Formats: sequence, C-alpha cells, structure tokens
Amino acid sequence: MYYAVIFTSRRTEVEEGYAETAIRMMELAKQQPGFIGVESARNEMGITVSYWESLEAIKTWKANTEHLFAQEKGKSTWYKNYKVRIAKVEREYEF
Amino acid sequence: MYYAVIFTSRRTEVEEGYAETAIRMMELAKQQPGFIGVESARNEMGITVSYWESLEAIKTWKANTEHLFAQEKGKSTWYKNYKVRIAKVEREYEF
Repeated sequence: MYYAVIFTSRRTEVEEGYAETAIRMMELAKQQPGFIGVESARNEMGITVSYWESLEAIKTWKANTEHLFAQEKGKSTWYKNYKVRIAKVEREYEF
Repeated sequence: MYYAVIFTSRRTEVEEGYAETAIRMMELAKQQPGFIGVESARNEMGITVSYWESLEAIKTWKANTEHLFAQEKGKSTWYKNYKVRIAKVEREYEF
C-alpha cells in the first residue's frame, strides 16, 4: 500500500522562476524519505502525481521549508488555481 | 469519500483512430453511473485521472463493451505501455 498525491493546476502567464522552481522541487522531492516516484504532464492543465510510502512522508514534504516557499510563490504568482488530492492506492495493473 | 483512477501512459506513433476514440471514451465515461469527473494532460507522458463514486462504478466502466474494445485497441496499437492505479481519495484542498 502506498499513497498518491494528485496535483492538478492551471497556470498564470507568468514564466519567471517557474521552470527552475519546478525542476528544483522535483529534485528536492526525490530526496525526501518515503518518496517513491513522480509523473507529470501539462498542456492546458497540469497534472503531477507523486507517490509516497506514507501519509507521514507526505506531511513532512508539505512542510519542507524550501517547498513551503515554493507553495507561497505558486499561489501568489504561478498558478491561477490548483487542487491537491491525497489518495491511497488500493490496486494497480499495467500493460 | 470517492475514488480516483490514475491512468498513465506512453503512446506509440500510431495516430489513426486514437483522438476519436479518446474523445468518445470521455463522452461515454461521463454517461456512466457513479462518474464524477475527469482531468487529462499529455506531453511525453499522458496522465488521465477520472473520479468515481465507488469501486463498483469503476468495475462497471472497465467492463463496458465499447470501452473493452478500446482497451484492446489501446494495447495492440496506441500505447507502448500504461499503468492504472485505483486509489481512494482521503483528503483534498485547493487554491
């Protein structure tokens, strides 16, 4: 059992600082305890799904100082709106 | 409480029939009992997340005849690989 954080967003027009911060946040997330993986796609809407071993790990990542800074900047500058869903993966299959 | 189906995929080069079927499946999904919503983004990777009221609703949609047909065609023609995760949404917040 593990958890998925589904982050869906719509961006503003502001590009300044966005790409660098997005890359940095990916790198930083990967270093967190309990991090499993991340997948991302964007066109009109952006969807990033990150996978975590526990709710505790998600909570710790959300409270990371550098991440908090990025979240604030996201709200003030880069995102029109976003939604975060925390979900427990109950089954999976692949092809 | 509701469920998310996280569908991540990588496409082949084959375009024939793909867009029409993707649109048709979106329309068809929206008509299913227990369907809540769907969000989709694609660049190198595609991520589609659909939301459902119950596992039962997800199972019924997966077994829909026209959808089964599209799933087979997806495996034989449109997708290099994909992964489906069924997850229970436990909390959410938005900006």
